[in-house]
Amino acid sequence: MSKSVFYHAGCPVCADAEHDIVNLIGAENVEIVHFGEDMSRFDEAKKAGVKSVPALVTPHGNVLHINFGASMANIKG
Amino acid sequence: MSKSVFYHAGCPVCADAEHDIVNLIGAENVEIVHFGEDMSRFDEAKKAGVKSVPALVTPHGNVLHINFGASMANIKG
Repeated sequence: MSKSVFYHAGCPVCADAEHDIVNLIGAENVEIVHFGEDMSRFDEAKKAGVKSVPALVTPHGNVLHINFGASMANIKG
Repeated sequence: MSKSVFYHAGCPVCADAEHDIVNLIGAENVEIVHFGEDMSRFDEAKKAGVKSVPALVTPHGNVLHINFGASMANIKG
């Protein structure tokens, strides 16, 4: 895996952060996962250590929680 | 200004995030400011909207708070 994965839930904070991250690291270097469109990725994100969105999981598996949009618990109650 | 600025305070969370950010966006695209070495940049960061470190201020002036190391209030009590 050489791409980062950006997980979000479509919130305004998420959209702003997505825009910034894509600008900073390049659209070709990041996969965008929107839980509102694809909940099948939720467990994978949780396993990676994502506690809230927006979050970026780096190619090394580190989780960067960027600002705060929503907790994972609020996404899947 | 075309570089991002990464503000931190030398905490372990800061160091991890610095490593990841430099890897992701490239050392040439980010200026690193360590408050432990240069408190003269503190007010500038606060004015930019930095509430906690580590934080990245993008070339467009957006603040990305990345994980949580310390609040700005704790750095300058």
